[in-house]
Amino acid sequence: VSRPARRIRLDLAYDGSDFAGWQRQRAQRTVQGVLEETLAEIQGGGRRVVLRAAGRTDAGVHARHQVADAEIASRLTDSEFERALRQMLPGDVRPLSLRTVDGGFHSQKHALSKTYCYRLDLSPAGDPFETRYALHHPHPFDARRVEAALGGLPGRRDWSGFAASACTKLDRVRTMTEAHLARLSPTRVDLVFSADGFLQHMVRNLVGTLLEIGGGRMPPETIEQVLESRDRRRAGPTAPAHGLVLVRVDYPDERAARGPRRL
Amino acid sequence: VSRPARRIRLDLAYDGSDFAGWQRQRAQRTVQGVLEETLAEIQGGGRRVVLRAAGRTDAGVHARHQVADAEIASRLTDSEFERALRQMLPGDVRPLSLRTVDGGFHSQKHALSKTYCYRLDLSPAGDPFETRYALHHPHPFDARRVEAALGGLPGRRDWSGFAASACTKLDRVRTMTEAHLARLSPTRVDLVFSADGFLQHMVRNLVGTLLEIGGGRMPPETIEQVLESRDRRRAGPTAPAHGLVLVRVDYPDERAARGPRRL
Repeated sequence: VSRPARRIRLDLAYDGSDFAGWQRQRAQRTVQGVLEETLAEIQGGGRRVVLRAAGRTDAGVHARHQVADAEIASRLTDSEFERALRQMLPGDVRPLSLRTVDGGFHSQKHALSKTYCYRLDLSPAGDPFETRYALHHPHPFDARRVEAALGGLPGRRDWSGFAASACTKLDRVRTMTEAHLARLSPTRVDLVFSADGFLQHMVRNLVGTLLEIGGGRMPPETIEQVLESRDRRRAGPTAPAHGLVLVRVDYPDERAARGPRRL
Repeated sequence: VSRPARRIRLDLAYDGSDFAGWQRQRAQRTVQGVLEETLAEIQGGGRRVVLRAAGRTDAGVHARHQVADAEIASRLTDSEFERALRQMLPGDVRPLSLRTVDGGFHSQKHALSKTYCYRLDLSPAGDPFETRYALHHPHPFDARRVEAALGGLPGRRDWSGFAASACTKLDRVRTMTEAHLARLSPTRVDLVFSADGFLQHMVRNLVGTLLEIGGGRMPPETIEQVLESRDRRRAGPTAPAHGLVLVRVDYPDERAARGPRRL
């Protein structure tokens, strides 16, 4: 019996706390690993499924809206497949939508931009409901200094100075389209970054540097100096993974390529 | 060396997921137990500390703002004591403020009203960031029917029909001052209840009944029938503990008795 193959787009959310990141790794619990196994189980016939994602998030990083795609061979409809996924996936990785897309769709290559949020908890004692999702930072934080530094970020630049030393990408030029501070409450702050691409640890290194600037330990000009020198050692430390969340991926034709947000 | 005794008021927040409720129990991890041990350790001298709370939350129930009080004998100032608490308490129970109050202050007896919130996650797949804090309810939910039923709740009534069968209170008359539905997003709903007191499981039994009404399985008049009959068996099931959170306690003289909200 032939099972027609098709490409599906899977929109999903996950709590990264208990995952060793997106990318499949031997003997580690990863988002890609858990999803590929579950998709293959639903597909049946012992065939593997290979999943691509818009952003390969690091260990501990969350996603409120990640986009992935895969080729599957199954006679289940999209909604039957989605329902099976809902039932079989663990509670910390949830499907938002699943639907058949054009065979040429590529969740990573076709993404126009991605948006990441880094959450800070500035309360003295730390919000017990945010320990897994925000960096507790009960230290001096001058929001105006941070906003001034953020204002200088957008543009097309070489981000080498904010990339992980281990970053293997040769082309490190990316265009940042947005960088701002959103105050959710007196003690909850989101630092929001949108770009056509991000280098490894780029947001976390930016946040680590912004916290130095906000605390008065580095001048706001540091950002520009790190960018110009392309010298990672001039930047601040890498902020912890658990404050970071992928919140959005944009595609050229929104109607065709973007799934409904149902959370 | 004499250590002057004084009464302190402790405002706090906790994630109830990993606690067997507020009340101290042998060989169980409870909020009262963890706090009393830590307070005694800071106080020193091997003396016990006995903590009273405005609301003795059940196992799994959270508090965004609980109020407790205790007599302590220590020469530490309030802010020194609070800092020590912050450092020594685990991440799931956090002090919001600690300060010396009038010796006659009683966090439970003097509370004018308490407010509880019950959170529902109506999304089909379930928000992975809310699994510990909201009841996942991917079922029919007619918000208008629920709001109509909530509208009939406020008033001075005998709540026996919504109390746990095990409830030992003789006087079951309480005054509910507020009962409403707050829609935080298309799929996140809070059911909010304020009263001068709550019986055991009262909010969870009300929510369980409201979900039956919202799903069309019970008529809206059920609420009135349960109240009039005082018959627990006519009400819906007890909603799970993890959706419930104590969000506020009000005292007569707000300036004197209410701590700053610092989360």
